Amino acid sequence: MSTIKELKAKIKQLEEELALEKSRNTTKAEPHGPGRDKIAKMSAEVVDSNPYSRLMALKRMGIVNNYEQIRDFSVAVVGVGGVGSVTAEMLTRCGIGKLILFDYDKVELANMNRLFFQPHQSGMSKVEAAQKTLSFINPDVIIETHNYNITTMANFDNFMETIRTGSIDGNGPVNLILSCVDNFEARMAINDACNELNQNWIESGVSENAVSGHIQLIKPGETACFGCAPPLVVAENIDEKTLKREGVCAASLPTTMGVVAGLLVQNTLKYLLGFGNVTEYLGYSALQDFFPTMLMKPNPQCTGRYCVERQADYQHVRWIRKIKLVVCEVVNRQISPWRCDLQLTSLYLFTFHRRNWHPTPKEEVAEEKEEEIKHDTNDWAIELVDETNPEDLVSKVDESLAPGIKHSYDKPVESKGEEASETVGHTEESMDDLMAKLKGL
Amino acid sequence: MSTIKELKAKIKQLEEELALEKSRNTTKAEPHGPGRDKIAKMSAEVVDSNPYSRLMALKRMGIVNNYEQIRDFSVAVVGVGGVGSVTAEMLTRCGIGKLILFDYDKVELANMNRLFFQPHQSGMSKVEAAQKTLSFINPDVIIETHNYNITTMANFDNFMETIRTGSIDGNGPVNLILSCVDNFEARMAINDACNELNQNWIESGVSENAVSGHIQLIKPGETACFGCAPPLVVAENIDEKTLKREGVCAASLPTTMGVVAGLLVQNTLKYLLGFGNVTEYLGYSALQDFFPTMLMKPNPQCTGRYCVERQADYQHVRWIRKIKLVVCEVVNRQISPWRCDLQLTSLYLFTFHRRNWHPTPKEEVAEEKEEEIKHDTNDWAIELVDETNPEDLVSKVDESLAPGIKHSYDKPVESKGEEASETVGHTEESMDDLMAKLKGL
Repeated sequence: MSTIKELKAKIKQLEEELALEKSRNTTKAEPHGPGRDKIAKMSAEVVDSNPYSRLMALKRMGIVNNYEQIRDFSVAVVGVGGVGSVTAEMLTRCGIGKLILFDYDKVELANMNRLFFQPHQSGMSKVEAAQKTLSFINPDVIIETHNYNITTMANFDNFMETIRTGSIDGNGPVNLILSCVDNFEARMAINDACNELNQNWIESGVSENAVSGHIQLIKPGETACFGCAPPLVVAENIDEKTLKREGVCAASLPTTMGVVAGLLVQNTLKYLLGFGNVTEYLGYSALQDFFPTMLMKPNPQCTGRYCVERQADYQHVRWIRKIKLVVCEVVNRQISPWRCDLQLTSLYLFTFHRRNWHPTPKEEVAEEKEEEIKHDTNDWAIELVDETNPEDLVSKVDESLAPGIKHSYDKPVESKGEEASETVGHTEESMDDLMAKLKGL
Repeated sequence: MSTIKELKAKIKQLEEELALEKSRNTTKAEPHGPGRDKIAKMSAEVVDSNPYSRLMALKRMGIVNNYEQIRDFSVAVVGVGGVGSVTAEMLTRCGIGKLILFDYDKVELANMNRLFFQPHQSGMSKVEAAQKTLSFINPDVIIETHNYNITTMANFDNFMETIRTGSIDGNGPVNLILSCVDNFEARMAINDACNELNQNWIESGVSENAVSGHIQLIKPGETACFGCAPPLVVAENIDEKTLKREGVCAASLPTTMGVVAGLLVQNTLKYLLGFGNVTEYLGYSALQDFFPTMLMKPNPQCTGRYCVERQADYQHVRWIRKIKLVVCEVVNRQISPWRCDLQLTSLYLFTFHRRNWHPTPKEEVAEEKEEEIKHDTNDWAIELVDETNPEDLVSKVDESLAPGIKHSYDKPVESKGEEASETVGHTEESMDDLMAKLKGL
């Protein structure tokens, strides 16, 4: 009997403890538990319980035509630190379809001067901590994490494959990559991957003294890539001697990083949903509240072979468009069939002629190649040809920069500048002549 | 025996349940539990466990001389919504000494498209939810909350008293007020309180279509107050017909609100810690990434009587400074005592003379007053005098605005413009004459 009594007492004690633990669990807010149920379809209904009402209102306000389309997009965020974590949170709260996060760092108390991570997450991997918080904030977003350094050989291949198949349905590439890393090597790795995959991306950065930052849209072949010129940073008119030395702890502020993340995601929304103007280069100088902008054309002498390939691809696309325009003109004039035939033949000959026409940057680049790589993402199934548009061949990165912007280091002297500019002159004249002749037909 | 067996099974089951509940409690992150211990003194030590290392690095980088002084400052944030909550979080992570939060709203799922609040906080009051999260993020910050609408009569008095005694030690006013409210009435209440208390504040706002915003520093008497002219907003070149109608749900974006909060807190840090330039008016147009700025002088015909009083105070301070300068000149020239005496007497007579000299805006304003209020925060213990500086009397708010900025509504026609401009001309000439005479002595 005594045993039964003891056992009963034990049960009572356990029941009390259990009740206490349960009450702790329920009264305490649950950061990574199910905060809200998933929502199958974005609604514009104006009720307090609809987390998308203020976003769908952008349609009623005439800003965005198709806000719910945001669920179809997949964005990769590389680097989940001071800028990347806020970037990921903003996209999550906007209801992006899929987020792919890359980082290999751990949360530390020393990160608490930036938004997003909280002290209890110290020691967790940044991607894991971010995934938990983001899934809790918006369970509708698919969040995929990769806890590795993308700059090592094996990880780089994995990174490329993830980007190439990162779309919502897994059958295509991600819609955009956002670079929120804090070092040159990682930026160059993203640049190499994006040039090879012909993948648009936006690079972002914050200075080591914490009072300036920038974002830069990079469309391979169309705008300067990260390797086309020394990276551009915001000039601050601060005594250089006071700036960071090797090994000195960089400063950071939640304000500067929040502003840069905000500008980055705002331009991402404009890019994905097609409203407003996406800015190519936007700087932020916090001391003066100065925001320099500029356009950046690619450098034909870029040492990245895939950048040069993409430049050729881009010029090819431009040529195809121009040719289509001429054909449309011909058709609209309702000329006789034989004349139309003649003109299309001329166009064909013209294009073919151009293919074998000029000495191209291709030859120079080809010398550095170990083997000729035919790329499977080349939608036009064409060889590398010299179809550069003359105005684009003039490398804008060599010219004076916009006020308030400077190169992060001096550009090496280029020996082929003269040669290139000759080519430009030659191409320009021939092209104008031929276009005039064609139109005159 | 069967009973004992049953009891033992029951115990085993309870023990398992208890273990599960306990593991839930420990594996789960605790959002409002003690995230980290308090830190008595900000350290610049570069270790992963120091939450202030990246902020104190601002000293080493030559940006801020005295970062640890941030602990001496108290800031009030009025409105803890999309901009205010991020503002409060940034200041908390920067290690501000004291935060005083005002709001009377509850967290809703419809707020989840902005940063900061999380779904499990739905239904909580915004100030309570914010206090818990912020204390958890940085327990070193003193956080005081006021859960009421500041625009009602009784609450307004309480608001005034809180501001007047809101310093770290409770013996003086807060160092700055940040307005993050979303309506005209609340902004006017803050404006009235700040004009009466001679309290500097920064107003912020985001447009109802979510794609523009601004911040505006208001120093009573020195810059235009919120009532000096119709509020300025960023012009967007969007068809007005598409804009919000009464009762239509406003749109919002975490990006725009994050950028505005970032710019607001960045300028707050510059203001408090004395680095860089604090911008008086800074707009943000998201569609074009355009950031208009402008300076705004106060309007001598402002209908707010305390604004006009502060304008007179400010001019008095300027006069005192000018007189001190002249005295310094006299002293530095080491002139004879009788000459110095003569000059100081002249200065005194000059100042006295000016006091009773002109017809002032005071008379016009006084007519509207029910009783003459002698203000206890008037540090100079002077009566309302016409010591306006001529260049400041020219109301810049009447002139063409900076590109990209417009009034939020048309300014009412002012009947006293002609009279005022006559006064300006008269003052200007007399002042120049007298200053020339004084210097010539």
